[in-house]
Amino acid sequence: MMKTFIKPQLSDWSILTSRPTKEAQDLQKIILDVFEKIQVDKDEALIDFTEQFDQVRLTTLEISVEEIEEAKNLIAQDLKQAIQLAASNIEKFHISQREEIKIIETTKGVNCWRENRGIENVGIYIPGGTAPLFSTTLMLGIPAKLAECKNIILCTPPNKEGKIHPAILYTANLIGIEKIYKVGGIQAIGALTFGTETIQKVDKIFGPGNQYVTAAKQVAQNFGVAIDMPAGPSEVLVIADETSIPKYVAADLLSQAEHGIDSQVILLTNTEKILNETIFELNAQLALLPRKDFAAKALQQSRGIVLNSIEECVSFSNIYAPEHLIFACENAENYISKISNAGSVFLGNYSCESAGDYASGTNHTLPTNGYAKNYSGVSLDSFVKKMTFQKLTAQGIQNIGPTIELMAEAEELFAHKNAVTLRLNDLK
Amino acid sequence: MMKTFIKPQLSDWSILTSRPTKEAQDLQKIILDVFEKIQVDKDEALIDFTEQFDQVRLTTLEISVEEIEEAKNLIAQDLKQAIQLAASNIEKFHISQREEIKIIETTKGVNCWRENRGIENVGIYIPGGTAPLFSTTLMLGIPAKLAECKNIILCTPPNKEGKIHPAILYTANLIGIEKIYKVGGIQAIGALTFGTETIQKVDKIFGPGNQYVTAAKQVAQNFGVAIDMPAGPSEVLVIADETSIPKYVAADLLSQAEHGIDSQVILLTNTEKILNETIFELNAQLALLPRKDFAAKALQQSRGIVLNSIEECVSFSNIYAPEHLIFACENAENYISKISNAGSVFLGNYSCESAGDYASGTNHTLPTNGYAKNYSGVSLDSFVKKMTFQKLTAQGIQNIGPTIELMAEAEELFAHKNAVTLRLNDLK
Repeated sequence: MMKTFIKPQLSDWSILTSRPTKEAQDLQKIILDVFEKIQVDKDEALIDFTEQFDQVRLTTLEISVEEIEEAKNLIAQDLKQAIQLAASNIEKFHISQREEIKIIETTKGVNCWRENRGIENVGIYIPGGTAPLFSTTLMLGIPAKLAECKNIILCTPPNKEGKIHPAILYTANLIGIEKIYKVGGIQAIGALTFGTETIQKVDKIFGPGNQYVTAAKQVAQNFGVAIDMPAGPSEVLVIADETSIPKYVAADLLSQAEHGIDSQVILLTNTEKILNETIFELNAQLALLPRKDFAAKALQQSRGIVLNSIEECVSFSNIYAPEHLIFACENAENYISKISNAGSVFLGNYSCESAGDYASGTNHTLPTNGYAKNYSGVSLDSFVKKMTFQKLTAQGIQNIGPTIELMAEAEELFAHKNAVTLRLNDLK
Repeated sequence: MMKTFIKPQLSDWSILTSRPTKEAQDLQKIILDVFEKIQVDKDEALIDFTEQFDQVRLTTLEISVEEIEEAKNLIAQDLKQAIQLAASNIEKFHISQREEIKIIETTKGVNCWRENRGIENVGIYIPGGTAPLFSTTLMLGIPAKLAECKNIILCTPPNKEGKIHPAILYTANLIGIEKIYKVGGIQAIGALTFGTETIQKVDKIFGPGNQYVTAAKQVAQNFGVAIDMPAGPSEVLVIADETSIPKYVAADLLSQAEHGIDSQVILLTNTEKILNETIFELNAQLALLPRKDFAAKALQQSRGIVLNSIEECVSFSNIYAPEHLIFACENAENYISKISNAGSVFLGNYSCESAGDYASGTNHTLPTNGYAKNYSGVSLDSFVKKMTFQKLTAQGIQNIGPTIELMAEAEELFAHKNAVTLRLNDLK
């Protein structure tokens, strides 16, 4: 069960806000070997690696129209409707992130603005493994479509029968992703980075994955590809007070803990009563979970901490910088302005993390491992480039030209100055 | 002089859109050695490395109030006014990038929104070297202040007298940057990454630099720090037609070429006449430049290309993805929607690159080396995290709860489902 701490000293906070340390296994060599083979043998290398790692020898990497049709028939009607509602909410929230073009006349005759363009080629990685993450297909595919990315390439590992989970195929098809490939792991990231006969090279790679996939994404950056963000195990921090409902708090902690044994969950509260009641509930609910082994192990490296006040809980949370922050207090809104580091924040007793994981509309691809201090979660912004434009009139260059000349000269860049001087002379 | 190509075949475009290859010198080991020493010896290591690389033994790393006052006295009044005008334009343009909070009710009772928070600790690197880049101090410092970053740390290498160029100090002071340190190179990036007694560890590092600095920034990412973007030599691509003015085109190409011998400039035009006239002007203007040796060498690896139409020039430019695109044609606006990959775009005969480099208001920290395909230039966005918030009412969870339950169950995440079921049961 989670370790508890009652009003620890401030000097202990740096240990209490730390993440479980992992042995930093050096995967660099393995990854570079796989990447090299893919650059040489392309599709053939992908098929070989898939046989080696996924125990299936494929004859074709691309998902066929027939497989999509089959998937559609395998998905129950109520699940289809659920996915459609979630897709609609995700679309509504992400479409609101579109930027209008604002032309700013910074000086008379000097007009500047930004325009967004979708990144042309994007790769979406959907893990196989213990859970078929069709929800991630929505979270990455919908903003990619809204950003008008031209080529959206989805890679996901096949099972031993060479199949992809039908919910992933149904979801990808629903939102208009046409290029779906049966390839996972390091080899999928290599294919997206270098391109093969079948899979197109992309400009940016998105999506979660195991340690091999996340390490491969880091290495891929050295070959000119951008990635969504560095990744680590999922985590939640819950702030609770006497208005919180312990069984909900326990359920929310468990919904994070079940992700994997390396998930971390933290409970902060200003009252020992809530801590004790939550632990009671954790024990009761844990026993009933199918994934209770994962969750129990994750709880062992998790913490329940009583602090002096909710203000102190917020300060602690800002240092920890959680991926998910559930502020399970009735007056949570009063503290919003004080929250400075978190991926996504859930306010009040009815805003469970599952809502944001699936269907409220916010994105669930969020910064973990303290990266909420320096990275944003995935949004429409992640799929676009923001280009600046400027147009100076004759009056515009006359107004700011002398400024540019002085500054360029002071930086000893005389060709920069001359580009202005020539124009100003012609306008005299 | 630049190499010229008249209507090359499409099959040659991939060579013509390539960058000069550099010997990929492996600096990893040098960088890790410096980083390790800084982690152990902190300030002492910085002072030793500064002696080794900058040939000056400092007694103190931080800039004093007296040094700031001295710098203010050393800057001419007209340059001060120029810097103030530039600062005002940069502030106007970047303030327009602030996002209003938009609360989106995706489903009745489900409210989602984003709020921006400044990244708390940011490091700004300003190179010393051949030109004192006080303009970069504006370009990085102003958005950092607008984003309300709490700690803004500026590092820049001292000269052999242990001094910083007064224009850098004046500019930093003008925009309210208080923490300025005399340290450059790999050791500055190490100090910002790990912290020392004097210099605070930061969350994100911004700024240009030589090959050591840019490589050190890449390595720093492995230690949890974010960076603005990967960097390469500066570059411009100019598209010109019969409405362009060859001497302006030549001046703009030279203002890029003077940056360094590894700068690349490309001229695309639909008419041989403009190409020839521009080359004539290039020769004439080059002879008069103080930095003509840099510029002449940069021109040797540059290209002037005649294509069949302006549409073709735009297609070529989109493949090359230039840092700066000068569209020096009278009807440049007609092509805006077709421009998909560029850092910053300058439209018409009066919008010289120098305007954006210094004073129009747009940011001059832009993606080079083809990274305009997958990265945006620096903007206010670069200094904030966009956090999502959500608040569900009882009605909200009733409306989307069944959807979440179905999806969580299909992903075999039963604790995720249970967090909803518990709440729905209480509301029955």
